[in-house]
Amino acid sequence: MRIGVLTGGGDCPGLNAVIRAVVRRGIGEYGHELVGFRDGWRGPLEGVSRPLGIADVRGILPRGGTILGSSRTNPFKIDGGVGRIRANLETQGIDALIAIGGEDTLGVATKLDELGVHVVGVPKTIDNDLSGTDYTFGFDTAVNIAMEAIDRLHTTAESHHRTLVVEVMGRHAGWIALHAGLAGGANAILLPERQFDVAKVAEHVSRRFQHEYAAIVVVAEGAHPLEGQMVVQHGQLDAFGHVRLGGIGQWLAGELEARTGKEARTVVLGHIQRGGTPTAFDRVLATRFGLRAVQAAHEGDFGTMVALRGTEIRPVPLKEGTAELKTVPLERYAEAEVFFGS
Amino acid sequence: MRIGVLTGGGDCPGLNAVIRAVVRRGIGEYGHELVGFRDGWRGPLEGVSRPLGIADVRGILPRGGTILGSSRTNPFKIDGGVGRIRANLETQGIDALIAIGGEDTLGVATKLDELGVHVVGVPKTIDNDLSGTDYTFGFDTAVNIAMEAIDRLHTTAESHHRTLVVEVMGRHAGWIALHAGLAGGANAILLPERQFDVAKVAEHVSRRFQHEYAAIVVVAEGAHPLEGQMVVQHGQLDAFGHVRLGGIGQWLAGELEARTGKEARTVVLGHIQRGGTPTAFDRVLATRFGLRAVQAAHEGDFGTMVALRGTEIRPVPLKEGTAELKTVPLERYAEAEVFFGS
Amino acid sequence: MRIGVLTGGGDCPGLNAVIRAVVRRGIGEYGHELVGFRDGWRGPLEGVSRPLGIADVRGILPRGGTILGSSRTNPFKIDGGVGRIRANLETQGIDALIAIGGEDTLGVATKLDELGVHVVGVPKTIDNDLSGTDYTFGFDTAVNIAMEAIDRLHTTAESHHRTLVVEVMGRHAGWIALHAGLAGGANAILLPERQFDVAKVAEHVSRRFQHEYAAIVVVAEGAHPLEGQMVVQHGQLDAFGHVRLGGIGQWLAGELEARTGKEARTVVLGHIQRGGTPTAFDRVLATRFGLRAVQAAHEGDFGTMVALRGTEIRPVPLKEGTAELKTVPLERYAEAEVFFGS
Amino acid sequence: MRIGVLTGGGDCPGLNAVIRAVVRRGIGEYGHELVGFRDGWRGPLEGVSRPLGIADVRGILPRGGTILGSSRTNPFKIDGGVGRIRANLETQGIDALIAIGGEDTLGVATKLDELGVHVVGVPKTIDNDLSGTDYTFGFDTAVNIAMEAIDRLHTTAESHHRTLVVEVMGRHAGWIALHAGLAGGANAILLPERQFDVAKVAEHVSRRFQHEYAAIVVVAEGAHPLEGQMVVQHGQLDAFGHVRLGGIGQWLAGELEARTGKEARTVVLGHIQRGGTPTAFDRVLATRFGLRAVQAAHEGDFGTMVALRGTEIRPVPLKEGTAELKTVPLERYAEAEVFFGS
Repeated sequence: MRIGVLTGGGDCPGLNAVIRAVVRRGIGEYGHELVGFRDGWRGPLEGVSRPLGIADVRGILPRGGTILGSSRTNPFKIDGGVGRIRANLETQGIDALIAIGGEDTLGVATKLDELGVHVVGVPKTIDNDLSGTDYTFGFDTAVNIAMEAIDRLHTTAESHHRTLVVEVMGRHAGWIALHAGLAGGANAILLPERQFDVAKVAEHVSRRFQHEYAAIVVVAEGAHPLEGQMVVQHGQLDAFGHVRLGGIGQWLAGELEARTGKEARTVVLGHIQRGGTPTAFDRVLATRFGLRAVQAAHEGDFGTMVALRGTEIRPVPLKEGTAELKTVPLERYAEAEVFFGS
Repeated sequence: MRIGVLTGGGDCPGLNAVIRAVVRRGIGEYGHELVGFRDGWRGPLEGVSRPLGIADVRGILPRGGTILGSSRTNPFKIDGGVGRIRANLETQGIDALIAIGGEDTLGVATKLDELGVHVVGVPKTIDNDLSGTDYTFGFDTAVNIAMEAIDRLHTTAESHHRTLVVEVMGRHAGWIALHAGLAGGANAILLPERQFDVAKVAEHVSRRFQHEYAAIVVVAEGAHPLEGQMVVQHGQLDAFGHVRLGGIGQWLAGELEARTGKEARTVVLGHIQRGGTPTAFDRVLATRFGLRAVQAAHEGDFGTMVALRGTEIRPVPLKEGTAELKTVPLERYAEAEVFFGS
Repeated sequence: MRIGVLTGGGDCPGLNAVIRAVVRRGIGEYGHELVGFRDGWRGPLEGVSRPLGIADVRGILPRGGTILGSSRTNPFKIDGGVGRIRANLETQGIDALIAIGGEDTLGVATKLDELGVHVVGVPKTIDNDLSGTDYTFGFDTAVNIAMEAIDRLHTTAESHHRTLVVEVMGRHAGWIALHAGLAGGANAILLPERQFDVAKVAEHVSRRFQHEYAAIVVVAEGAHPLEGQMVVQHGQLDAFGHVRLGGIGQWLAGELEARTGKEARTVVLGHIQRGGTPTAFDRVLATRFGLRAVQAAHEGDFGTMVALRGTEIRPVPLKEGTAELKTVPLERYAEAEVFFGS
Repeated sequence: MRIGVLTGGGDCPGLNAVIRAVVRRGIGEYGHELVGFRDGWRGPLEGVSRPLGIADVRGILPRGGTILGSSRTNPFKIDGGVGRIRANLETQGIDALIAIGGEDTLGVATKLDELGVHVVGVPKTIDNDLSGTDYTFGFDTAVNIAMEAIDRLHTTAESHHRTLVVEVMGRHAGWIALHAGLAGGANAILLPERQFDVAKVAEHVSRRFQHEYAAIVVVAEGAHPLEGQMVVQHGQLDAFGHVRLGGIGQWLAGELEARTGKEARTVVLGHIQRGGTPTAFDRVLATRFGLRAVQAAHEGDFGTMVALRGTEIRPVPLKEGTAELKTVPLERYAEAEVFFGS
């Protein structure tokens, strides 16, 4: 068998661990040939690939990013894109494709599967918002990086009697904010899933200053205040309705400073949440995903995506994995609220 | 309600996070009184306790160890021990006890529950070997510490063309060795669950030196070679049959050096695996365990232990949690074997 | 003797280590009484203090921030401020004051010394820009945090074939940018000390994309392009001429994207550079500063500031320490330039 | 010019950073050819080398170990060794050699220089015990790793009311023990430079248990108790008089447990102190050493070794660098003693 691998979408700690596991088992145990496509779907689209041997994956386990490169290329948005992919796969003798990616990459995989291309998916989203799997790799690393930043910010906040607003990733789902906020001991956590009342947040902060000299508020980049609370001039919102300059964190810090009379500052963690060496959790999960995905390819179990359920990895229908956005349920948010404002 | 809390057995990152969550919800949401018993079961046995308020748990979330202290005191092994505990609980007006601990601590809790004491258990074992819960807190921290050590050792092994044997915790179950070895890219992993053939391990190592200049072997402290392979003088084994001086790691390094002709060294990680600040995974899990345990106490759901199943925390019968040792299943070990010797 | 201690200005990892060393030697070796003033010069100004015993400094060595709090209060800018300080010091029987702080705090100390107040200074600036001492504590921690962030960003930049602009602290001196950029393998480093030619920076970046798929540019927050290169609308510059919204990093990323045709992103590290646990270098330096400062007070060596020269700590005249801003010399910048653009 | 590079002796974080800087400036600025010799002096001895280009040093800055490999080969201890080296250097057209190593490697370099070989030295010792330079790279990384381990051990010691003995590197000089102990808040620090009285150490530990529940003792592997205090059976000491099995740490823990009545445990950090990614301090120092060494070679400044003096890098005579062992002076040890026993 000749199996192609590609990584699409935003990078994520653990991608290399998946690639390594696919190659190690694919060659070492099954005796297949492995081929790496460059830059997500651009690779099969333009036929850019290279053979992947054991030596190519040496030493990549602890490294962030992806040795295959990534892109957001979508062949279904390109005239004749799908045809070119099929042609290139045929020319190169590819029997199966392992596509590692998020909603978009797996969406393409699902459609290609329906067209008869042999695909196995590996779910990847740093935001942990893919349904069908308990967790995705990269998420644990991002949460730890954010938590360590919050740990550091506590001492600054305390020394200066300030409010510190920490803006973390999460455009549509607040998992990183929830877990990093819980782990970092935040005094309020704001998610995209629930519009927040800035007056209540200010209350939490004020209550905190009665006993303590500092407050930490964690906000997901996609969180919104109640309608009408955010008065911004025309042009400050982008196409998604997000605050353009400085983001929600900066706006919130201004509001909290005005409403509580305590100095407030913002830190936007940004890209450092998605780079660098993966945590053990992510390395193990990514490795197990890779092992299981190449097994699925080997067994002809196409149209599937590997998923974590409890402590087991199992294949589920590709469609299921991308069926809906997995958002933070109410009861998980309620857990965090126990710690708000005190 | 007046609720007592205690921590027993070996320390574990996340104990303070449990205590904090119990206190924050117990007082803040339910309005109960909280009391901390000192040093595990020694606290109720000798009646040593102190009130726990919100202020007492400030800032403890990121700290390893336990503010309550710990011990291995077992009241059932002390004459009149159980009677004294019951008397002290009554004197101090304790309505319920939250016992955070491993097999021994929860074993005592189970027996006390049978005698009518109101107990809720929180499972704690750095070795992750308690049945009834998918994971216990502390384990993820230990695995990350071991993985970081292995990451560091790779470069030393490569520069000196050596075999490095890393001995990690795990007397009866090899979870830490398995996960740290997988995450650290070990070339062989040896567990208590499976006697190993030292000749085969030497083969893995030798194969590795054909292409590469180094080998990393991860061994759990409780791993054993096949019968007859370890020839030790009388007096070098302790009561459990473990090698007394230097441990299995030191013995193994000597064997591998002799069998492969390549210099071998040992590192014994020891206590650094169980101290210090918990990872995000462990802080979140410990916090959720604490929240759920105090809820169980509040709801009169005694004789239970909180457990992680998938992504949910739920109470299970105390007995279930300590019923058997959760060892590494064969299929999980097979995953790791894909990476052996190359 | 009764010795007061205060910490002023921005917080910095190592402040607590200084306080601890002052207290441990002041009480343990010399038998003096120690008093902590709250929030920098606001403490003596308003007479807010508390006794400091050995127990008060237990466990604070690894903690960032300052247990005494900080502020930017300047008694010389307050009517009757100096008189109030003298009165409060007399009332509280303070024989000597150890002032830990930067340019402003030590500037006040220098003037008070001239008025006869017994002061010993401990230099503190995360930016490492105080003359008179080879290094200040906090700097090494900040550089390591920035370096770790750059390490992480490399993999993201490579996976997405992007330019990543990392904005670090340094309003007037570029030490953090220089050291973090050197340590992180930056492809260009821009400092406040040298106006940069954005065309040349774009050239470095373009050259980099000929062989590699990514570029990292480190820019100090106080760096400026050549006159005329930055066209900003009125209102976008603050009082110091710095770009107000988004900072120099954001502007630079926009320019580089436009000039090189490669996607560029910015990360602003901000407050995470100054919080959290200090590195070993900073803990040792801060401890040695504290030990030497209380010795100077004990020996009546007032009007001095402790300083690192080579591997020794010695007292130097307070004036010397704040005489001028220590900026990055040309030859140090030339070292970094060896690595630019390739 | 054709310049050879080699790395000898024990590995050390920062070796790759030196190699990279040598190559980058050697090729990029001076236009020389660079050649890497394999495994220390074994490389020139056996003529094993490979060209080093810019591409060979990409990405190695953050990596521990050495891409050139290392060994303890000493050509002066091999019949005809020196002659073979001279012949190989001539055959390969090597005009100058940059030797990166410790006492042994630089000792060979010194003798070769006297025989007319063009050599520039770069000092390397993780123990920081080379005279002639304020610091060597690798030391700061080792100290930070040890400090982080001690930070972790504090919580375990406190939870279990134990003494923890941490054995760190340092056979002849106690710099790592001193700095890690100071930075980690040790209650006693024992160095090779001063025989220790185990009764006094036990006193420190006992005093500590009066107020606190734990004690941390840091001991260098080469530390010794007073004559007669260590009673060991014949065969337990190695050729240097060091305790063979378990080391000084294990012996000390046994003694302290017996003398104080408090449980004591040992952790031997071993090889994890010398592997892995270097700290910022070490990356900057190693980079500057490399830049300056290749400049010295370029300028024909042979028989020298680069050295850190204050904040400057300058060449000093090779002999000076290895003239004597730099041990911890009394006044530095006195600083640490302020914190003993309390």
